[in-house]
Amino acid sequence: MQLLEERIRKDGIVKDGSILKVDSFLNHQMDVTLFVQLGDEFHRLFAGDNVTKILTIEASGIGIACVTAQVFGCPVVFAKKNKTKNIAGDVYTSPVESFTHGTVYDIIVSKDYLKPEDRVLIIDDFLANGAALSGLAKLVQDAGATLVGAGIVIEKAFQPGGELIRSRGIRVESLARVKAMHSDGSIEFC
Amino acid sequence: MQLLEERIRKDGIVKDGSILKVDSFLNHQMDVTLFVQLGDEFHRLFAGDNVTKILTIEASGIGIACVTAQVFGCPVVFAKKNKTKNIAGDVYTSPVESFTHGTVYDIIVSKDYLKPEDRVLIIDDFLANGAALSGLAKLVQDAGATLVGAGIVIEKAFQPGGELIRSRGIRVESLARVKAMHSDGSIEFC
Repeated sequence: MQLLEERIRKDGIVKDGSILKVDSFLNHQMDVTLFVQLGDEFHRLFAGDNVTKILTIEASGIGIACVTAQVFGCPVVFAKKNKTKNIAGDVYTSPVESFTHGTVYDIIVSKDYLKPEDRVLIIDDFLANGAALSGLAKLVQDAGATLVGAGIVIEKAFQPGGELIRSRGIRVESLARVKAMHSDGSIEFC
Repeated sequence: MQLLEERIRKDGIVKDGSILKVDSFLNHQMDVTLFVQLGDEFHRLFAGDNVTKILTIEASGIGIACVTAQVFGCPVVFAKKNKTKNIAGDVYTSPVESFTHGTVYDIIVSKDYLKPEDRVLIIDDFLANGAALSGLAKLVQDAGATLVGAGIVIEKAFQPGGELIRSRGIRVESLARVKAMHSDGSIEFC
């Protein structure tokens, strides 16, 4: 998606060769006007898939998921990273390794909000190693729901997540696929 | 807001006398169609305040903040609960006590995204003890920005947060104010 690639080139900052900092518009400050355009593009890609629910993960996936859900006219469910007192009862759970923080954590969704009849679109801001997306896909599978695919804002195509997830037969649509980032700050797209 | 009160009566679950579980539509599964109506109401309340930025806190404030920001035509910034590797540089920080988890954590916003010229509307899903809202208000103050007020979806008016924050001269608009919750599951609004 050209608009997004241009925005990444303009406002993205390459750090230490593999970190792409886009917190001026995507995951700390959020440009909601851009999100509307991204949501429209996700809808164009998955309009024929009868999506009944959008699944994402806290925290930075929630904004883009909610704006996208307005176009689909369906609710959002976000997986939580820790069990809180306010989620009681039965949950689906999946372990996720965080490469950013060097830890493993559980993601959790209440069984009340993922049902076998659901047709689920996963939305997230980043795809790199695929750990979060794998965990989310497992939650959908455990619920017996149908996973129609995943819509990702930025895929780091030089990391293994995209290939890993696609090799399992899951449809992944990334609006920008970064092929390489260079020490001079330049960014190449696929 | 009558629509919201009706929804809370219909789908909210009172637990242990003081916990109001609304995770079927507000903070785990998110009814984005309802969020649009809440966002319109926040806009009606703060339309004359020249809001340039909406500030919220991860995770469950982000969805309602992003939908509301579409109506205001401004970006969202969400305060993070822990310093991650992806926020470098100067930050504003404020300690917040979590009564749910029995812990104290820091909330953090990059100095790049709160500026003295900003007119900030804080949006959050709940107001109870006021700890999160106090912390967010301090971030705005530390930035030298103007706090136009706070828009809250559900205020537990029987807890001290609302009175505490209003006594400091901060305008707080809550779309539903819960006066009391009873062991039979019934809910009274102010």
